[in-house]
Amino acid sequence: MISRRETLAGAVAGAMQTLHAAPARPNVVLFLADDLGCHDLGAWGATDLKTPNLDALAAGGVRFTNWYAAAPVCAPSRASLLTGRYPIRAGVPDNGPPLRASEQTIAQVLKPAGYATGLFGKWHLGDTAETDPNAHGFDRFFGFHSGCIDYYSHRYYWGDPRVPNYHDLWRDRTEIFEDGQYATELFAREAAQFLRDHRADPFFAYVPFNAPHYPMHAPQKYMQRFPAVEPERQTYAAMIAALDDGVGQVLRTLRELRLEQNTLVLFSADNGATREARAGLHGKPATAGNNAPFRGNKFSAFDGGMHVPMIMNWPGVIPKGMVVREVGSHLDLMPTIAKLAGVTPPTDRTLDGSDALPLVLENAKSRHDAIFWSSGGQLAVRRGNWKLVKDGKTFDGTPDGNKALTGDDALFLSNVDEDPGESVNLRHRFPQVADELSTMMMKWADEVKR
Amino acid sequence: MISRRETLAGAVAGAMQTLHAAPARPNVVLFLADDLGCHDLGAWGATDLKTPNLDALAAGGVRFTNWYAAAPVCAPSRASLLTGRYPIRAGVPDNGPPLRASEQTIAQVLKPAGYATGLFGKWHLGDTAETDPNAHGFDRFFGFHSGCIDYYSHRYYWGDPRVPNYHDLWRDRTEIFEDGQYATELFAREAAQFLRDHRADPFFAYVPFNAPHYPMHAPQKYMQRFPAVEPERQTYAAMIAALDDGVGQVLRTLRELRLEQNTLVLFSADNGATREARAGLHGKPATAGNNAPFRGNKFSAFDGGMHVPMIMNWPGVIPKGMVVREVGSHLDLMPTIAKLAGVTPPTDRTLDGSDALPLVLENAKSRHDAIFWSSGGQLAVRRGNWKLVKDGKTFDGTPDGNKALTGDDALFLSNVDEDPGESVNLRHRFPQVADELSTMMMKWADEVKR
Repeated sequence: MISRRETLAGAVAGAMQTLHAAPARPNVVLFLADDLGCHDLGAWGATDLKTPNLDALAAGGVRFTNWYAAAPVCAPSRASLLTGRYPIRAGVPDNGPPLRASEQTIAQVLKPAGYATGLFGKWHLGDTAETDPNAHGFDRFFGFHSGCIDYYSHRYYWGDPRVPNYHDLWRDRTEIFEDGQYATELFAREAAQFLRDHRADPFFAYVPFNAPHYPMHAPQKYMQRFPAVEPERQTYAAMIAALDDGVGQVLRTLRELRLEQNTLVLFSADNGATREARAGLHGKPATAGNNAPFRGNKFSAFDGGMHVPMIMNWPGVIPKGMVVREVGSHLDLMPTIAKLAGVTPPTDRTLDGSDALPLVLENAKSRHDAIFWSSGGQLAVRRGNWKLVKDGKTFDGTPDGNKALTGDDALFLSNVDEDPGESVNLRHRFPQVADELSTMMMKWADEVKR
Repeated sequence: MISRRETLAGAVAGAMQTLHAAPARPNVVLFLADDLGCHDLGAWGATDLKTPNLDALAAGGVRFTNWYAAAPVCAPSRASLLTGRYPIRAGVPDNGPPLRASEQTIAQVLKPAGYATGLFGKWHLGDTAETDPNAHGFDRFFGFHSGCIDYYSHRYYWGDPRVPNYHDLWRDRTEIFEDGQYATELFAREAAQFLRDHRADPFFAYVPFNAPHYPMHAPQKYMQRFPAVEPERQTYAAMIAALDDGVGQVLRTLRELRLEQNTLVLFSADNGATREARAGLHGKPATAGNNAPFRGNKFSAFDGGMHVPMIMNWPGVIPKGMVVREVGSHLDLMPTIAKLAGVTPPTDRTLDGSDALPLVLENAKSRHDAIFWSSGGQLAVRRGNWKLVKDGKTFDGTPDGNKALTGDDALFLSNVDEDPGESVNLRHRFPQVADELSTMMMKWADEVKR
């Protein structure tokens, strides 16, 4: 019997096209940022931030420049990322509902292949014995169930201020106290330990940091890296710097364990940056995060809401410095990872993604004819370079930003290749495209609810 | 020229009655707890809590068993404590308004006598250059301006959850970060340092801890002292244990500096324990703090709202183990401390208290003919053992608790000596008393507004 590592080495040494056939069961580390502006990474062009570890990860692998979250808001985005199903199908159309027990996550799908599975950070998909991370295939959970926590006390404070706020830090189903420790650093520490504990197993480490989601707070050591940046952006930059350090710590551990060649590392975000006042410092629409050149923000069906960075890195397998412009989606992660692990995703339900590695390894075209979104009364579709948004909202932090565009712009057609900011409505110039996409979108919206 | 210490030693050695004449300028340390149930101290009879330092402080000095805050809620209580004036007179009838620049605090009054003045903890009376602690006579301020903070991140979270929460920890007017450090311990540390820095000066250290005010959170080392106490009360007990340790740290410092004989140490609370759900763990009326046998809770004009513990300790001056049953009030602290320091309180305005030390040193009777309260639509008066409450509310955590008693009980007369729980309405048995107190109270309410 040959070892897992030898099998993998053979696969890597062989033709890349044969990779998918190799029963290599590589490790997978999936980092996720929270409310990160798509271009708020050095590797995506940011010059005032410092993300050396993520930049190196991107330089050593592939950047997807047309990658999308399946929703512009936390919980549905995560539900789709983990299940490979559109949010509505997965039962999480918006923040609020848990991920029902019948949904199958990547972790659950990997278990039969012998994977150790761990989640280190934010779950946001339920806190009962039927819906928590342990119920959804994670052997180990260190993190919190809610949408965000105070970074030091790990308390959830965003309910009605008259009701109790509560402490929300758990190791599996046991509440634990790491009072005063910065959450981002805790999650990195625990993820690194998980790698050490499972160096001999195939593992899936899902590391959804809470950063740079509000509350806007970072240790001074990170703040001091950005002395010239204005305070709101400085805080955001510092929170991302802590995240980047955390990524670095995990990647260093991978290297120390000599698992680098055997591990697919992914980095993405759940949705775009937000303009919510509570993500700022001044009681005005937050300006910390930057979705430019995209239009819209977290919650928006314009690209600012869910056009996210995606890095895939796998030394020896994924070429260095590659850029993929084909459309990809968080929906693709389940089939991508399942294929690598040699397991079959659930066949008793509709999955909405497809293996993304051929886009990298075979220069394949996206297998998505179109991808769709439904969020907060908005509908959207992207097909090729066309993007159509119905009843789009920008969520720019003003009261008007919470309202749907009206008149002609209630249906907004863009060519996002030429106009990534979705600034020019082409619906009257290309009525047939608008009509066709609209029909597809309405059909999808109807079908996905069933 | 004789030293200050020699002068004091002479005063202490002399007849106690002469103390007030001695130009001794003793130090004053004033500890304050926040939302503490009156009997939630070992020295007041609690058996499930552990407050050894406060118990020793009480055993070594005097306990006042009929001491009152001037309001059943934070800011007005503190405004009166610091100015010696009823909340309405001091311009702080309820939480909200700052302490206006024209008000004179104990710290301001002590400055001409050469006192070093420091505040370590909660201010809650303004955050502008005209209203902050430095503006009100405190040379040194280490603490926060708001009503409460997360104990680890020092952020204020109790506004509209859609607006920014904010970091609120300051050294004088400079925002400082002590991220992850438990606030109660920080305040004790800073107070102790202040004593060391001013060992050669007369000093006034005002140490208003935030404990045991929500958020309900204490380090595990304190939680572990109460393994058999149910979690909500356990958390409260642990927060008080941290406070008690902090008191111990400051008192130890006093001893190390050999200033014990030269320092009047006071301990009290701003108001009674609260039943607000957010001060509990379960979304129900909080049960952590205990105002029994008193009726009502924080916000209430019944005794549960503002009947508070008061300890005065001054080795060699105040007898050990003494109990004073005469009525005293936070209003008395300004005249008491001013007299000790040999300074004159402001004479251009009405002060509502009187020197409390004669109650201790001369077995004098309370100089208060009556004391009054006005809070949240309630009026109350205590005169001798009579207490009259008009439109009283119990604030028991239920919706009804926020409503005034109706019918006969809209005017509630008690003999608080026989019935400390204000359970039997004597208005019809003693109509003349009720009438007399009511008339006094209405007259006061009218007069105090002018």
